[in-house]
Amino acid sequence: MNIAARMAQIAPFHVMELMARAQALEAEGRSIIHLEVGEPDFATAGPILEAARRFLAKGHVHYTAALGLPQLREAISNHYRVRYGLEISPARIIVTAGASGALLLALGVLVNPGDEWLLPDPGYPCNRNFVRLLEGRPVALAVDAASNYQPTATQLAANWTDRTKGLVVASPANPTGALLDSETMASLAGVVAQRGGTLLVDEIYHGLTYGVDAMSALAISDEVFVINSFSKYFGMTGWRLGWLVAPERHVREIEKLAQNLYIAPSTVAQHAALAAFHPETTEILESRREEFSRRRDVLLPGLRALGFKVAAVPQGAFYVYADSSALGADSDQLAGEFLSEAGVAATPGMDFGNNAPRAHMRFAYTVARDRIEDGLARMAAMLGSR
Amino acid sequence: MNIAARMAQIAPFHVMELMARAQALEAEGRSIIHLEVGEPDFATAGPILEAARRFLAKGHVHYTAALGLPQLREAISNHYRVRYGLEISPARIIVTAGASGALLLALGVLVNPGDEWLLPDPGYPCNRNFVRLLEGRPVALAVDAASNYQPTATQLAANWTDRTKGLVVASPANPTGALLDSETMASLAGVVAQRGGTLLVDEIYHGLTYGVDAMSALAISDEVFVINSFSKYFGMTGWRLGWLVAPERHVREIEKLAQNLYIAPSTVAQHAALAAFHPETTEILESRREEFSRRRDVLLPGLRALGFKVAAVPQGAFYVYADSSALGADSDQLAGEFLSEAGVAATPGMDFGNNAPRAHMRFAYTVARDRIEDGLARMAAMLGSR
Repeated sequence: MNIAARMAQIAPFHVMELMARAQALEAEGRSIIHLEVGEPDFATAGPILEAARRFLAKGHVHYTAALGLPQLREAISNHYRVRYGLEISPARIIVTAGASGALLLALGVLVNPGDEWLLPDPGYPCNRNFVRLLEGRPVALAVDAASNYQPTATQLAANWTDRTKGLVVASPANPTGALLDSETMASLAGVVAQRGGTLLVDEIYHGLTYGVDAMSALAISDEVFVINSFSKYFGMTGWRLGWLVAPERHVREIEKLAQNLYIAPSTVAQHAALAAFHPETTEILESRREEFSRRRDVLLPGLRALGFKVAAVPQGAFYVYADSSALGADSDQLAGEFLSEAGVAATPGMDFGNNAPRAHMRFAYTVARDRIEDGLARMAAMLGSR
Repeated sequence: MNIAARMAQIAPFHVMELMARAQALEAEGRSIIHLEVGEPDFATAGPILEAARRFLAKGHVHYTAALGLPQLREAISNHYRVRYGLEISPARIIVTAGASGALLLALGVLVNPGDEWLLPDPGYPCNRNFVRLLEGRPVALAVDAASNYQPTATQLAANWTDRTKGLVVASPANPTGALLDSETMASLAGVVAQRGGTLLVDEIYHGLTYGVDAMSALAISDEVFVINSFSKYFGMTGWRLGWLVAPERHVREIEKLAQNLYIAPSTVAQHAALAAFHPETTEILESRREEFSRRRDVLLPGLRALGFKVAAVPQGAFYVYADSSALGADSDQLAGEFLSEAGVAATPGMDFGNNAPRAHMRFAYTVARDRIEDGLARMAAMLGSR
């Protein structure tokens, strides 16, 4: 069987097996509380759906330019002006097939075979697999509660080698919900710049922060690559649309790659997304953000009461990354027990790297509060009966 | 500036510059006949639009499984049964973000750095750039009118080296519209199998053939990788949806890569595509196919009358690849003159490889017959006034 060597180093999502088992249980009539899914349960906001319907009424669903609809690039630029007070030229904004497309375009023009890229561990597993796809070498930067699950400039400098070409960070991060503050972001950017490397910042959970605003790395430097998404805050997962902000002198190369790898992002999704920044949409999204905040405030104390350890209150995304070691030595086994005995699905740490994965689990607050409460009660009953 | 070495070998589409110039001329009020665009001018067929609208009415646009909606994989499987008399298990069918997504998934699990893959020249330029993205080495197989612009088994065997790992062919091909017959396909597959390589067949123009049916490589072997698309025959370019048929034992690896690189294809597009195989859609698409045939039968004799040489009548896709050497030594310059002097846009051969590109141009019959006739008259007037 002809299989590229890279595939041995690209892991499947373990949670997919767990989800398949959850579905099998549901098919048998079992009720399952889904705390494993990194996707909000909300429908697409009405004004976005309405924009899609208006576009489809004309029926002409042709390719757009590879870099995206000019008016959508303008709208994203305006979003940076309104939300962040930043002037980001539309010429630097590339509309992509999800944040996945943004990552492939950015890393495709940056990563040479053998190049080392540093990525926090735990972290979103796809990011390192994009580096591997391009024959680069993803190198883990172990992060933990002591540094709010984000790398520090000191740690970055200590781990930078002659082969290191870049750093990928996320704020808010998955699975931890941890943010990078301005000072830390600036110091990380400083180390990267000083070494002649590239900083890529995953900002796909921007907008989903609670009691604090996430700062964009674009405020610090025009040299960073920033990826973002319409999936999370804008609630457009299944539409597959995101964007990339790149240094202006890289845009021509990115355009070449976009033409070749994607032709263009989805035209329907792009026209729908034009409504994502309208005030009536913002009102809906902000009320959902408040609901996420309330869900977190149910889930987090509930998990702590069960014996999970969570050092700091996660300030963004919709995840709680919990130390499960007081409840069991192996979070993968514990996740299996929660599923089969309590009917609660959560993601074992294994999906997020090699840094104490068996001592951690990720819980997503992407379902309604009563479901979260039900899930907590089920886990309590199971743990109490031991 | 940190740019990966691969980017120096990934060419932009030259036609994009020509299209930008065409748009600039149109902005000045000039009328331009577009014979350069590889995209049909038709709106999406009504039943497909209606399926999208019905799906959007519910508003729940969430991720699907990475391999695609089970019912769409079933529908594609049924399409092979109905149209080709082939039994292709849905388990082997992967729904993708366009044929682009299918190519990246197939080559991503197959291509190791330094592996050589053979591709016909002239050919669709993106294919070789996917090989290059993955650090493989695309190697051109020069094809010409003598072998109907397709490689022969003898040629393939003569060009296969110890480093060769596979062959990518297309039928119908872009830019030539040339088909591979069963005998040639079987003999190519035989050489590839005998050398332990992999055959990948691009069938994205299937359905768009005139007076002949294209045979699928799946009729010959379960070992081939076949990519297909909803863009061309099904007229869904801007929706960005395609599919891959792979040997069953490769599907698990492809699923891993799909989860990591795409999460899932567009949910809206997948629900819309469920209507692509309905009888009322087929009726619309078949009448469009007949219209393409009539357009070809205007364009081809018209080009020949102008002095272009086209050896064989192209039997598929919507392109005529014409030898322009009698009209000018450099097709790139000639294309520029057609645009600026006659207001006709066509694609210079440079976009399709290094095999006599300056002696060839590609004309697409993706616009209405009266536009094609107008374009021919404009070129005739320009050439006559020289």
